[in-house]
Amino acid sequence: MMAPGDPDFEARVRASFATQQLMTTIGAMLERVEAGKVDIRLPFRADLTQQHGFLHAGTIAAVADSACGYAALSLMPADADVLSIEFKVNMLAPAKGDAIVARAVVIRAGRTIMVCRADVVSITGRDEKLVAAMQGTMMVSYAQ
Amino acid sequence: MMAPGDPDFEARVRASFATQQLMTTIGAMLERVEAGKVDIRLPFRADLTQQHGFLHAGTIAAVADSACGYAALSLMPADADVLSIEFKVNMLAPAKGDAIVARAVVIRAGRTIMVCRADVVSITGRDEKLVAAMQGTMMVSYAQ
Amino acid sequence: MMAPGDPDFEARVRASFATQQLMTTIGAMLERVEAGKVDIRLPFRADLTQQHGFLHAGTIAAVADSACGYAALSLMPADADVLSIEFKVNMLAPAKGDAIVARAVVIRAGRTIMVCRADVVSITGRDEKLVAAMQGTMMVSYAQ
Amino acid sequence: MMAPGDPDFEARVRASFATQQLMTTIGAMLERVEAGKVDIRLPFRADLTQQHGFLHAGTIAAVADSACGYAALSLMPADADVLSIEFKVNMLAPAKGDAIVARAVVIRAGRTIMVCRADVVSITGRDEKLVAAMQGTMMVSYAQ
Repeated sequence: MMAPGDPDFEARVRASFATQQLMTTIGAMLERVEAGKVDIRLPFRADLTQQHGFLHAGTIAAVADSACGYAALSLMPADADVLSIEFKVNMLAPAKGDAIVARAVVIRAGRTIMVCRADVVSITGRDEKLVAAMQGTMMVSYAQ
Repeated sequence: MMAPGDPDFEARVRASFATQQLMTTIGAMLERVEAGKVDIRLPFRADLTQQHGFLHAGTIAAVADSACGYAALSLMPADADVLSIEFKVNMLAPAKGDAIVARAVVIRAGRTIMVCRADVVSITGRDEKLVAAMQGTMMVSYAQ
Repeated sequence: MMAPGDPDFEARVRASFATQQLMTTIGAMLERVEAGKVDIRLPFRADLTQQHGFLHAGTIAAVADSACGYAALSLMPADADVLSIEFKVNMLAPAKGDAIVARAVVIRAGRTIMVCRADVVSITGRDEKLVAAMQGTMMVSYAQ
Repeated sequence: MMAPGDPDFEARVRASFATQQLMTTIGAMLERVEAGKVDIRLPFRADLTQQHGFLHAGTIAAVADSACGYAALSLMPADADVLSIEFKVNMLAPAKGDAIVARAVVIRAGRTIMVCRADVVSITGRDEKLVAAMQGTMMVSYAQ
């Protein structure tokens, strides 16, 4: 496990997530919060879909980006905040079923830059399927 | 201008956009539809934001991905549909103001693969600012 | 392990690699070839570096792209060839030491599109360090 | 035109390019150097190709990455250096002909992060064709 930058990282991550209004709007839930690893679950909703009734790539990207951002924040000092610099996401299979879960992990924790990967799986009953894969870059930001 | 794959491309793009429930949910509007170029506008809404009150990167990605997808679809044959294979997006400035507009253009139209770029600007009164840049890959898909 | 598309996949991958003149030029060596997994090693050479004496990002990308391409090819039918559609690579640490090794794995093997990830490590004596991470999209191609 | 961070930016860019041994090894030449815009030309060489005799994606990425890096450096203060954080490149057509030219432009010049796009064209006689498109993130770095 990577070393958190602040012993209260979990509370800090959960508090910040609660202020991301988009996550509330789409019904996303923060699940696992460990140092360098964060999972977010999104129950399937028809109002978040594209033209074929699958979750829209933007919906998937939103959940994966928040998971990456909070995985990064979990390793940052207490006075830092996280900014998404960029991400890339591949859509691997139609996102349908009961829910999706984005599982993000920090693969490089620098002083300024953190790099994360996220796997997004769809859950249907007890089955899991990989539906998207993200690789993104997060920045450690300090209020001026 | 690139050659559309179907004279009715604009009607086809507008009909497909109308079935993307996510676009309705977030209040996005399809504006320009030309062969290989599509613009989508999203008025700012607080319920689509991240922890600092700016539009969430996932919100921006959703609008830019739909713009890229429909720019690609505008060049496809009448019986084809579009799938997002992957995209990469850089966040360049906080997305705030009255609205954002994603302007997508096809830079390579192949028989199977189309590659697009989108610039996303924020609009505040009469000012425009570049807030994100996407480059993505779309696939020409035929129902089996 | 994923199922190879051709029992002779290893011979086919090794024969194709031998025809990539860039790999010969830079001194890259094909190591592990399994179904869906390929490793390529590049001994450090000063003539492949950037302005600080570390391996150039393009050198790293070349090795990781070939590893991804051949991981994908290992799963394709005997009459198919592989094309790189796109890749994204993050530089995580300076690439120095004795050698780098790119380890690629297919994360989604479709009929037309394969998606791969590669981790690139630097080797210094017995130490390994992650220096780059790639995610890319490969296409199954048939000669016309 | 963007404002250079140093009046001697062109000399600084040309001096740094001359120390990138990979560029010498592959025969790449620095052409245009303006504030925020850099072109690099690579004459075609068979020893830089992949299995079909076209320039390898890694060769193309190397040239485009250096062009992006130096476009970014041209806007940085005199005591700064440039690091590639990440890039994404789409291959659009086979890279063959007399030469390729990568034309990079900075689309966002921040204090710490610069974002660039590069178009790579192949030149055959008087014809140009777009063969690759890059979008990448460069960092302003100061020696410790």
